[in-house]
Amino acid sequence: MRNLLMTVSYDGTNYFGFQTQPGGNTVQDHIEEAIHQLTGEQLKIHGSGRTDAGVHARQQPFHFHTTSQIPVERWCLALNGRLPSDIRVLTAQEVPLTFHSRRSAKRKTYRYSINGNRIIDVFQRNYQFHHPGKLNVDAMQQSLPYLIGTHDFTSFASRHSTKASHVRTIYDTRIVVDSSGNIPGTTSQGILHFYVTGNGFLQHMVRIIMGTLLEIGEGKRAPESMKTTLEAMDRKTAGPTAESKGLMLWSVEYDEITG
Amino acid sequence: MRNLLMTVSYDGTNYFGFQTQPGGNTVQDHIEEAIHQLTGEQLKIHGSGRTDAGVHARQQPFHFHTTSQIPVERWCLALNGRLPSDIRVLTAQEVPLTFHSRRSAKRKTYRYSINGNRIIDVFQRNYQFHHPGKLNVDAMQQSLPYLIGTHDFTSFASRHSTKASHVRTIYDTRIVVDSSGNIPGTTSQGILHFYVTGNGFLQHMVRIIMGTLLEIGEGKRAPESMKTTLEAMDRKTAGPTAESKGLMLWSVEYDEITG
Repeated sequence: MRNLLMTVSYDGTNYFGFQTQPGGNTVQDHIEEAIHQLTGEQLKIHGSGRTDAGVHARQQPFHFHTTSQIPVERWCLALNGRLPSDIRVLTAQEVPLTFHSRRSAKRKTYRYSINGNRIIDVFQRNYQFHHPGKLNVDAMQQSLPYLIGTHDFTSFASRHSTKASHVRTIYDTRIVVDSSGNIPGTTSQGILHFYVTGNGFLQHMVRIIMGTLLEIGEGKRAPESMKTTLEAMDRKTAGPTAESKGLMLWSVEYDEITG
Repeated sequence: MRNLLMTVSYDGTNYFGFQTQPGGNTVQDHIEEAIHQLTGEQLKIHGSGRTDAGVHARQQPFHFHTTSQIPVERWCLALNGRLPSDIRVLTAQEVPLTFHSRRSAKRKTYRYSINGNRIIDVFQRNYQFHHPGKLNVDAMQQSLPYLIGTHDFTSFASRHSTKASHVRTIYDTRIVVDSSGNIPGTTSQGILHFYVTGNGFLQHMVRIIMGTLLEIGEGKRAPESMKTTLEAMDRKTAGPTAESKGLMLWSVEYDEITG
């Protein structure tokens, strides 16, 4: 028995998220089917976490146990030949049997992208939330330090969260405004990318933080409301859940993997 | 009667090119239908040129004559509300009645994008040609100066070209290699963007130049073959026509527009 760790990139537009659902058509389903076609094994893969329907992944790890003897360097091309073109396995390595893509994860980073221009970018239409209204980025920046550290994030979790604890640690947040792609003659605020890194995230957590940040940017709430919202530990004190298509799992980091 | 000049951006994946075809489903058809819905007029728009099926446009000008009195600043949002999400009108301005988006054009720039990485980028899968094989970019660069200037481009034109003259002037060519998006742990050459600017382009011309450039990059022909191919004035001496999805009309430039 071998334990294989792989990373996958996917355009989530056409999927009901990563993890298998009763309704089918998830990224996990497609990967398991590709493995079945390749090795004949009907096995379960284990993702580093879930993603919601419509959310994308630049690089999401998953692992599984296999009896297949296919050399590790041949797995990527073999699986990609059996996957739809919006799902691609990027890397594959053999890891100790004790390694677990979710439990061993140390840091996860998500990116949420907002198109602040008057008109959407047709080439990014499934990957950016369109918000042409004026955003006060300074106010948004001022609210971010309140998120850093270890807090109970109940205010920023879906009411349907089933986790025993809502305590998570945020290590880093960052807003990057990119105006490099602006087309001459079009009015625009550019693209706003919000990056957030933590030890783990609750259901809808990044999207609710984003919804709250947007209300701060719109002047509907003060930057300090990020602090009072956290302290309230009540979902209704936060902003709305931002649309899923702007969200991308950016990276998942592990400590050095040893046997 | 007013003459309106607009620019449009489109993801060409789902269209049979810009210009109206007997089979329908072109970008022009959708824009004319949106104008019809908005003003009631059944008119013809005039593009700055054609694009092949599957080719994209970052910014393509078109113009049309209208009796509508809708203020020019309201046209973009009004048309975009009636267009599919992969077609967006970016700018609109009133121009003299003598202005013609194709005949008045001075310089056109196309970009052709190649993904040289081992595995495609799922988010760019419809906008990049995948070429994981090793490319000698230096050899490709060496061949580019032969294209500059005024030449008969018969070797680089579709055999179905109906133009009386195949003489065109190329002002500038450029290859930009972008490795910024490379994902750690994946092997890659990065993304190669080829930009070419000229006073006009024949049918398939950029794609045939690209197909020839690729053979030079693969070592199948010498950089100097760009010169001998041009001189031969024979389509069969050039490389194959590169896939349409990597091609994007980048920009069209005019002299200052005056009345």
